[in-house]
Amino acid sequence: MIEKNVLTDFSSSISQPEIDPSTYVHPLASVIGRVILGKNILVSPMASIRGDEGQPLFIGDDSNVQDGVVIHALETEVNGKSVEKNLYTVNEEKYAVYVGKRVSLAHQVQIHGPVVVHDDTFVGMKSLVFKSLVGNGCVIEPGCILMGVTIPDRRTIPAGSIVKTQEDADNLPEITEDYPMKDMNRGVVHVNTSLAKGYLEATGARPASEHL
Amino acid sequence: MIEKNVLTDFSSSISQPEIDPSTYVHPLASVIGRVILGKNILVSPMASIRGDEGQPLFIGDDSNVQDGVVIHALETEVNGKSVEKNLYTVNEEKYAVYVGKRVSLAHQVQIHGPVVVHDDTFVGMKSLVFKSLVGNGCVIEPGCILMGVTIPDRRTIPAGSIVKTQEDADNLPEITEDYPMKDMNRGVVHVNTSLAKGYLEATGARPASEHL
Amino acid sequence: MIEKNVLTDFSSSISQPEIDPSTYVHPLASVIGRVILGKNILVSPMASIRGDEGQPLFIGDDSNVQDGVVIHALETEVNGKSVEKNLYTVNEEKYAVYVGKRVSLAHQVQIHGPVVVHDDTFVGMKSLVFKSLVGNGCVIEPGCILMGVTIPDRRTIPAGSIVKTQEDADNLPEITEDYPMKDMNRGVVHVNTSLAKGYLEATGARPASEHL
Repeated sequence: MIEKNVLTDFSSSISQPEIDPSTYVHPLASVIGRVILGKNILVSPMASIRGDEGQPLFIGDDSNVQDGVVIHALETEVNGKSVEKNLYTVNEEKYAVYVGKRVSLAHQVQIHGPVVVHDDTFVGMKSLVFKSLVGNGCVIEPGCILMGVTIPDRRTIPAGSIVKTQEDADNLPEITEDYPMKDMNRGVVHVNTSLAKGYLEATGARPASEHL
Repeated sequence: MIEKNVLTDFSSSISQPEIDPSTYVHPLASVIGRVILGKNILVSPMASIRGDEGQPLFIGDDSNVQDGVVIHALETEVNGKSVEKNLYTVNEEKYAVYVGKRVSLAHQVQIHGPVVVHDDTFVGMKSLVFKSLVGNGCVIEPGCILMGVTIPDRRTIPAGSIVKTQEDADNLPEITEDYPMKDMNRGVVHVNTSLAKGYLEATGARPASEHL
Repeated sequence: MIEKNVLTDFSSSISQPEIDPSTYVHPLASVIGRVILGKNILVSPMASIRGDEGQPLFIGDDSNVQDGVVIHALETEVNGKSVEKNLYTVNEEKYAVYVGKRVSLAHQVQIHGPVVVHDDTFVGMKSLVFKSLVGNGCVIEPGCILMGVTIPDRRTIPAGSIVKTQEDADNLPEITEDYPMKDMNRGVVHVNTSLAKGYLEATGARPASEHL
């Protein structure tokens, strides 16, 4: 279900999600408001991407939003004025949530902006990323909580970790050749982009009328 | 989607949810059975409020039920007899779940009755409250588990805490002037009540026929 | 919503879910692809059972799939060849996910295959079971993470545990006579099979046309 957001004192404009025609949104997923979805993305059942408070929410090409994922963000505007602390700048544009290319958001993940997740990172099942920036090529194992931290590139976060201080973030282990989940994200991206293509073809191209 | 519950040996009556006309239930949220929703509540996509086992489930005015939240409760009746251990009494009425006024149930929270959450409390993302009573003005940070405890008023629970003994509950820190999330719930309530109003206006008043 | 999966290089056939007529799938739940659901199962709102990567996903008689549960699995086939490491054999058949009889998958649980959960086990709210085998009659309390382990029969896993080594799994406590949740699953199964029956009768038998 794809809908516009609504006018409030923290949102002075109404937006329709911008969704590349190669991206598949399941009918039991919800995408609302100022959301930009790139190419070849699978948005699975029960996912909610809600761009009606912090805006915009951006997902790059070949990423995936798996079952039950929630993406939302703290307010980025109050009475027409920008709330800078809740925005990240990437490539000279400002975002409430910026998810790069080939990023996997596994089942039941939550991304709560302000957040950046850079390219080729795997966010493991049930993990929460809040007020944080995650580098390129990281592997966040299942059940982690990241709050208020910056994760350097190519780090791994052990399952169930709670990372709330920058010192803890800086001490996370680097991904080494013998790390078992080193290449996993590549396979997850392949599976999800293939499924997006398959479901789009099976259901026919998303009709314009579905964009309410 | 708003539906009645069904007759079973633990539910001797069929109820239609009672929803104030100022409250907005997203079409991809589910509200079933003996549920009472007060004024100005936003029930977001993928939330499930299911009053078919423990009953009733009550949510007070100006509270919010965010994306993917689940509210359910242990049985409160067996073969027509009340199961007192699974009921809380608030203002001389019995409830399986009682959520007060201006309470935020953040994304992917679970409230599993018997539970009381008193006014002005923030239940952080992904937290679980089970068989517990939470006081006024608390801040439960993300990813907590509360089981079988009573939380005094104005306490904060650090992210990722597991609170299973009353001794641990009693030792939780009080909210102080320098606590960063001290006033956060006020803003969350403002955002969500504004969105409820906006979505109701945008979609037109909920037609009676939607109450199946 | 009940749908077929799609052809990909990890899925050489298209399957319609096989659902016993005594099983109830809520209209806001999603069941896709090579999924086998036995008798008297309640699939609650916001559950997603997606048999389009690892296949098949099997749920035995009298089990339950509660609100917001996600069931999915790692690929079991690549270019027409079986991926044995992602399959478990039960009763001489191979499965990506095998859930036995009278198993409860409580609210917001995630089962990510390869996984086996044997009969009469309770998987507590918000727990994640990934690449693991769980024995008969276990009680997984809420908020646990199991990864890459085999849990012997009749063990209990304390709330919030992270079990990632076989040594930890082997040391889990056995269920004793004085364990408070010893008989809980029996009640949960009774409640859920009763609700499945009630909702089926209330909505009429699932019409063939719902199987798209």
